[in-house]
Amino acid sequence: MDGSHWLSMHPLVEKLTENGHDVVVVIPESSLTMGGSETFTVQTYPVPYTSQEITANFQKLSREHFSLPSHFPWIAIEMLDSMMVVFNMFYKSSCKNVLQNETLIEYLKKGKFDAMLSDPLFPCGEIIAEFLSIPSVVFTSGAPFAIEQEAAQSPGPPSYVPKLFTTFTDHMTFIQRLQNVFVSLFDSVLFDILYSPYAKLATEFLKRDVSVMDLYRRASIWLLTYDFVFEFPKPIIPNMVFIGGINCANRQLLNQDFEKLVNSSGEHGFVVFSLGSMVSEIPMDKAMDIAEAFRSIPQTVIWRYTGKVPSNLGSNTHLVKWLPQNDLLAHPKARAFITHAGSHGIYEGICNAVPMVMLPLFGDQMDNAKRIESRGAGVTLNVLDMTPEDLINALDSVINKPSYKENIQRLSALHLDRPIHPLDLAVHWVEFVMRHKGAPHLRPAAHDLNWIQYHSLDVFAFLLAVLVTTFFISFKCCTYTCRRCCGRKSRPKSKSKKE
Amino acid sequence: MDGSHWLSMHPLVEKLTENGHDVVVVIPESSLTMGGSETFTVQTYPVPYTSQEITANFQKLSREHFSLPSHFPWIAIEMLDSMMVVFNMFYKSSCKNVLQNETLIEYLKKGKFDAMLSDPLFPCGEIIAEFLSIPSVVFTSGAPFAIEQEAAQSPGPPSYVPKLFTTFTDHMTFIQRLQNVFVSLFDSVLFDILYSPYAKLATEFLKRDVSVMDLYRRASIWLLTYDFVFEFPKPIIPNMVFIGGINCANRQLLNQDFEKLVNSSGEHGFVVFSLGSMVSEIPMDKAMDIAEAFRSIPQTVIWRYTGKVPSNLGSNTHLVKWLPQNDLLAHPKARAFITHAGSHGIYEGICNAVPMVMLPLFGDQMDNAKRIESRGAGVTLNVLDMTPEDLINALDSVINKPSYKENIQRLSALHLDRPIHPLDLAVHWVEFVMRHKGAPHLRPAAHDLNWIQYHSLDVFAFLLAVLVTTFFISFKCCTYTCRRCCGRKSRPKSKSKKE
Repeated sequence: MDGSHWLSMHPLVEKLTENGHDVVVVIPESSLTMGGSETFTVQTYPVPYTSQEITANFQKLSREHFSLPSHFPWIAIEMLDSMMVVFNMFYKSSCKNVLQNETLIEYLKKGKFDAMLSDPLFPCGEIIAEFLSIPSVVFTSGAPFAIEQEAAQSPGPPSYVPKLFTTFTDHMTFIQRLQNVFVSLFDSVLFDILYSPYAKLATEFLKRDVSVMDLYRRASIWLLTYDFVFEFPKPIIPNMVFIGGINCANRQLLNQDFEKLVNSSGEHGFVVFSLGSMVSEIPMDKAMDIAEAFRSIPQTVIWRYTGKVPSNLGSNTHLVKWLPQNDLLAHPKARAFITHAGSHGIYEGICNAVPMVMLPLFGDQMDNAKRIESRGAGVTLNVLDMTPEDLINALDSVINKPSYKENIQRLSALHLDRPIHPLDLAVHWVEFVMRHKGAPHLRPAAHDLNWIQYHSLDVFAFLLAVLVTTFFISFKCCTYTCRRCCGRKSRPKSKSKKE
Repeated sequence: MDGSHWLSMHPLVEKLTENGHDVVVVIPESSLTMGGSETFTVQTYPVPYTSQEITANFQKLSREHFSLPSHFPWIAIEMLDSMMVVFNMFYKSSCKNVLQNETLIEYLKKGKFDAMLSDPLFPCGEIIAEFLSIPSVVFTSGAPFAIEQEAAQSPGPPSYVPKLFTTFTDHMTFIQRLQNVFVSLFDSVLFDILYSPYAKLATEFLKRDVSVMDLYRRASIWLLTYDFVFEFPKPIIPNMVFIGGINCANRQLLNQDFEKLVNSSGEHGFVVFSLGSMVSEIPMDKAMDIAEAFRSIPQTVIWRYTGKVPSNLGSNTHLVKWLPQNDLLAHPKARAFITHAGSHGIYEGICNAVPMVMLPLFGDQMDNAKRIESRGAGVTLNVLDMTPEDLINALDSVINKPSYKENIQRLSALHLDRPIHPLDLAVHWVEFVMRHKGAPHLRPAAHDLNWIQYHSLDVFAFLLAVLVTTFFISFKCCTYTCRRCCGRKSRPKSKSKKE
């Protein structure tokens, strides 16, 4: 999987190589963030689009986003729509291109791999793992339709487990709970519709009828880049392993240019601004608004931006094509982090204890922003309606109101206080699956029950039937007895009458 | 908590002391396994019974056990009954004696403790933790009525999560699922009845109305001596930490006597037999049967037994008052482990990969035995009906059939392949709670919902009401429209008739 998905998984792949494993990474010839490596083997396959087309499409998508409303349920519909664009643009064809690439499949068959490490956004990895009969480890920050929850058989009561795209917290009003129940009712229907092309693809490839959810269900371990300082606590399953903050592991010294920049920022320190790996350009009017806000704050701003330079750019604002986000946030002079609230960036904010101003755009970002806001560690702004004053006020709050810094420091302290580093934990479980050919002892027996059995509906139906029958028989007995008694009482009367 | 409960918790307390913490252990003046220590402070309180009386009562209990049937539901009723005996004999008064001991309570108040470590079998620890307003860490191998599940808000679908005392596995027949649903329906009722004296005690002590479950619910971390090589995988909650096998940590060299004994056992090796810390005597006819079986096996037998020596004892059978169980099982010549299937012993069997013959007696032992049997790593015998031949056959199977050894070795390999030792994990989470004054970020919001809200029953009732109203209005509209239409059609007719 491309983009931030790969950026999160990359340190794990590197570490596995370091530990002496032969790792083969299968990537499309055109991608945003994936490329060759000196440490692991890369196998590419041709795809019918170029890297430039992906970038252009994501930029088109982000431009469209800057002209739409953003409240539930519209935001959910919009997010779903953008997901469909991504589905149709790249990955359906990308997955098809892997499965139909005979040379690649032959290579994988000959490889005699011990395990498959895959991203569950699309079930390509699962289809190939099933084909090769090898166990799989799934790596995700949370898939749409709560795939990880459904596939691992983890209960998620809609009364306090908010659904993706709702932007609700774990404390919902009645109306929110109603909406959450609605979303959860339609989740599986939408999943079936959206993932049906993959079911077809898998059925053709594996030459037998198979459902996408069944493919996900065979996962041995779910490596989830969650931490409950950020995610809301909910029921989990023993084969779920939590490795939130895995991406904070790679820390390096700042290069000379950035070092100079942050050191020149003076007592007010600096602000880091990035909208993630997908979005480096925004419409000019929005860029002007943001530049306007930055002019009037005392901090230095380091802004990842590749678009046309706004004419009102202040001298304290430095535009860069790329920035070492985690290393900058780790600097003691970092005062605030303006982010699109992708989970990757959020964890870098948390582990470095930098309060955030969040401008969510796609996917889970709106939900992520709400989570951090509900913890009092950041402010969410609607990038569409936002005025320069809004941004100035938000920055002023997170930098100067002590509560934001205190809250993010508290979250950071909880997050970093762990018995084992998430990267080591992830490596352990991948190697565990390789050593033991899976982890069947962590797989709940719920997988072997159908929906009716799982919910004990057959048991309750039986109990109800017994109850009704008992009641019916008792009633009949009573009426019969009554009639007999009355009959006996009345018979002598009639007899006496006759007499 | 006394007995094996304390034996399991003891290494953690020792390790906390080693790490420089001041630990105060509150114990009754009379107990089976708890005593003074050079490393931690012990605070005793007087109780109205002697250690001899506890031993005598447990021996009476075990004698009674040897003369009862043992199939579900009788075994469940019997187990419940024995639990009531324990309740009434010791712990109700023991808990009362803590809370009414003003000197002790004053001492605890002045102690300014960071955390409470407690066993949840009785809620004494929770009552005091609430009184002292300190966070608590609960340590258990699984409490009756699935207290840990209920208190932590962990869902446990009765369709595949077998209830305590049922001896079912996670794969149940329809009839077993029916029984399991029944047991789960009565669980909370029985809990309320059995624990009501504690609710009264807590209400008096805390001077406000409080339920026992609410006291358990305030636990910050649940340290569960589970491992899913043994327990059936089921939904869990993020503040549950799994430390199964914590008791295998303490390993020492065998003393000269035992070393000599095991070395003299020859090529056939030896068998370890213990019925746990509570039961060291059994009725003579049973002891004779067992001695008879041991005479005819080629292995040396080391039997923990304090009763009268059976007259038919073979020369290969050695009676000892105490044995270093874990160290003996760790010896390469250990061939089989005859155990009462307490979870403490089971984990020592697993971590040392010794196949087991299980003679369950009380509490969760029957369930434990079924779990190991369902994994093909041991044979369960009913100690009451068992003949010498049964025991000989069972020992022959686990020692000579390769599948038992292979299965226990597989379980052992899975169990020991962990990213961090359970003892270090337990220490981490106790210290975490001390450092952060609890772990509220791991507490699910389910705690803030009532039963109706949790199950979204209000939402479904509302949806049903809307549906019914809509249907009713639509129906009324239809009938009204039909009547109007029919009316119009018929009116002209009547008009024309008039004309």
